[in-house]
Amino acid sequence: MSKALGIAIAGLGTVGTGVVRLLAEHGPLLAERCGRPIELKAVSARDKARRRDVDLRGVAWCDDPLDLIGQAGVDVVVELIGGSDGIAKRLVESAIAARKAVVTANKALLAHHGTAIAIAAEQAGVTLGYEASVAGGIPIIKALREGLVGNRITRLYGILNGTCNYILSTMRESGRDFADVLAEAQSHGYAEADPSFDIDGVDAAHKLAILTSVAFGVPVDFKSVHVEGIRHISAQDIEFAGELGYRIKLLGLARRTEHGIEQRVHPCMVPLDAPIAHVEGVFNAIVAEGDFVGKTLFQGRGAGAGPTASAVVADLVDIARGARLPMFSVPANALSREGAAPMQRHVGAYYVRLVVLDRPGVIADVAAALRDEKVSMQSMIQRGRSLEQGSVPVVLTTHETEEAGMMQAVKRIAGLPAVVEPPCVIRVEQI
Amino acid sequence: MSKALGIAIAGLGTVGTGVVRLLAEHGPLLAERCGRPIELKAVSARDKARRRDVDLRGVAWCDDPLDLIGQAGVDVVVELIGGSDGIAKRLVESAIAARKAVVTANKALLAHHGTAIAIAAEQAGVTLGYEASVAGGIPIIKALREGLVGNRITRLYGILNGTCNYILSTMRESGRDFADVLAEAQSHGYAEADPSFDIDGVDAAHKLAILTSVAFGVPVDFKSVHVEGIRHISAQDIEFAGELGYRIKLLGLARRTEHGIEQRVHPCMVPLDAPIAHVEGVFNAIVAEGDFVGKTLFQGRGAGAGPTASAVVADLVDIARGARLPMFSVPANALSREGAAPMQRHVGAYYVRLVVLDRPGVIADVAAALRDEKVSMQSMIQRGRSLEQGSVPVVLTTHETEEAGMMQAVKRIAGLPAVVEPPCVIRVEQI
Repeated sequence: MSKALGIAIAGLGTVGTGVVRLLAEHGPLLAERCGRPIELKAVSARDKARRRDVDLRGVAWCDDPLDLIGQAGVDVVVELIGGSDGIAKRLVESAIAARKAVVTANKALLAHHGTAIAIAAEQAGVTLGYEASVAGGIPIIKALREGLVGNRITRLYGILNGTCNYILSTMRESGRDFADVLAEAQSHGYAEADPSFDIDGVDAAHKLAILTSVAFGVPVDFKSVHVEGIRHISAQDIEFAGELGYRIKLLGLARRTEHGIEQRVHPCMVPLDAPIAHVEGVFNAIVAEGDFVGKTLFQGRGAGAGPTASAVVADLVDIARGARLPMFSVPANALSREGAAPMQRHVGAYYVRLVVLDRPGVIADVAAALRDEKVSMQSMIQRGRSLEQGSVPVVLTTHETEEAGMMQAVKRIAGLPAVVEPPCVIRVEQI
Repeated sequence: MSKALGIAIAGLGTVGTGVVRLLAEHGPLLAERCGRPIELKAVSARDKARRRDVDLRGVAWCDDPLDLIGQAGVDVVVELIGGSDGIAKRLVESAIAARKAVVTANKALLAHHGTAIAIAAEQAGVTLGYEASVAGGIPIIKALREGLVGNRITRLYGILNGTCNYILSTMRESGRDFADVLAEAQSHGYAEADPSFDIDGVDAAHKLAILTSVAFGVPVDFKSVHVEGIRHISAQDIEFAGELGYRIKLLGLARRTEHGIEQRVHPCMVPLDAPIAHVEGVFNAIVAEGDFVGKTLFQGRGAGAGPTASAVVADLVDIARGARLPMFSVPANALSREGAAPMQRHVGAYYVRLVVLDRPGVIADVAAALRDEKVSMQSMIQRGRSLEQGSVPVVLTTHETEEAGMMQAVKRIAGLPAVVEPPCVIRVEQI
């Protein structure tokens, strides 16, 4: 059997201790599968005294994560600190500069600095594994970069944030409202105390930006992702969605359009016959459409110690087996230079929920606003039952139309005297 | 850019021409992704004159597929002839002996001779790619061998035959009977003129035997797969399944039990809340459960020119990129020697549909037969409406019980004078 692959882990939170545990439990199995053992040589974490229930005897401890790089026998630095900048970034850059392979679960880092890091890794001739940065246990980076490598990917979309999917699933099952379900999710530990990173779509956008690079061979372009969260989704929207034959899901979507690469994260009306409509709770799922393979779907747990450790170790095994791949499917110098498609040019169908005063002429005014912006209405539901102060909900759906005109129409509608709340707009996806 | 990877293709049917077309359409893209071009050097097929709509200018033609091996510049032989023995086997063995890498879509060959071929390839130091042999476009071999490599797989199951899934889906949607839907599938080209290979479960069993080896690190053991097909499933069973909260799917299932490795292919009652229950039509899907990753699901097209070509080319790209992996996750000499679990020791729940004469005492006799074999009944539905000659359908489900006792009970029930048709038994899966 060949020489061991020596690794150092920076960060011993949930994922870090999960990796330590997996390596300990499956040591002989992994050695057989790799043809060589994987040995934990050194670790670093903020608090040495914290109880972690993992055996770290014989493993060097570094107070400064940067010191991991120089520890004896370390071939790979595993970065599980997190954060787009600061020490995580310094560690990854320094490890690459020292010609160490790097494995990271850090989606924020890659979303913000992925292209520069890919170029640095390529120039240093080291591997950077990042399977754990997107969709936890689902081996989607490997699927895109290797399994579907024979295809030109035409479209990619997925449920990339388990917290949002849990909240939307629970709202649907229980009929309860967003704030209520969020509070419960927080008490269960499914949502952070400060939930904005998840529920405002930022986390999903980080992951989408990484997936887009792998799928389309373009530089990581997080700032071009159009991002909306799920705070504005009401129990009523979920009920209307059901009536119209849809489920509401927060999706990340990317495709190549005539205007460039389109990347967006927002709540979507997904038809009930789409398999992804049935992915519930904390699960993640990604659909990749390839020109030869057609539609493929990958589903699994998107977070947690076990699934994320599984992904980190898959990267370690690849390195131990000697795999060497360009980070984003093609070498960094071959990444396509095509630009981002402006969201204004997006074409799709829309769902709009209004709360209007229950009096004659309101629908005519709404219809006129749509007509003036050349938006074609597909259906309209007006509920008789009154809400507060004599107002009623009105839901309309449109045929495919351009985002720019649609947003103009919505702005005009929002300004009508009889429209008493900001309109709730949800895009309808044909998937 | 490095030297081209030269390939030869044996067999220019649907899949073979699909591969030729993919390589032609995506030549520059693949060269970029591999770091070297993939060049088709030679082909062989039965009928040179057949019209194929692919450009084979500059490609050597061999009447004898064995001659492909010696053609100038050929590094990889792609075997797309099919069949468990005969020329396909000779070609694969000869190519390995000549130290050429091999890529094959031939599940029958691997199900019958996979272990011997793996040993030969390992001894010769060549790669054997077989992603295309299981579930077409779904990169499941890669997922098991690499993406989920950090896990001990605890259970694996899937819809492995698109023809059966299409027939069962269509029976459910239309309420029509098996023979009728099969005839339609044949006219659409979704089923072969001789459909037994698909509908009797043999094709699914071939694929399951291969997956089991990769997932559990055991030699390929096709002869130990318990196989039942879907001929006996009636429109009535599908209707009862719906009433009981199930869908009927032909699944291949494998797990490690205390009695050894259990492999079985048969129709299953799958609960409606299982994602795989919603995989319809010609799609395939596989669920792998790992001790760290939890449940992962992979779904896509299981057959056809495009998906299968996608899988063949993924293997070619791996070879072009220099990947070298043990065929079944671990080297052939490290495959576990544990035996097969006998089907008699299988433990599970059962659905039984009887057709009985509509007269007093019949249910008591059925219940007594179950009791005598220590099978515990969970539910019973008796329909009032008479079928032919005063007979009525009776459906019962059991709690978990051992196969041996269950089969004894069914045998006794079948022998009761009031039971006028052979009982239809379908296993209920908790997944």
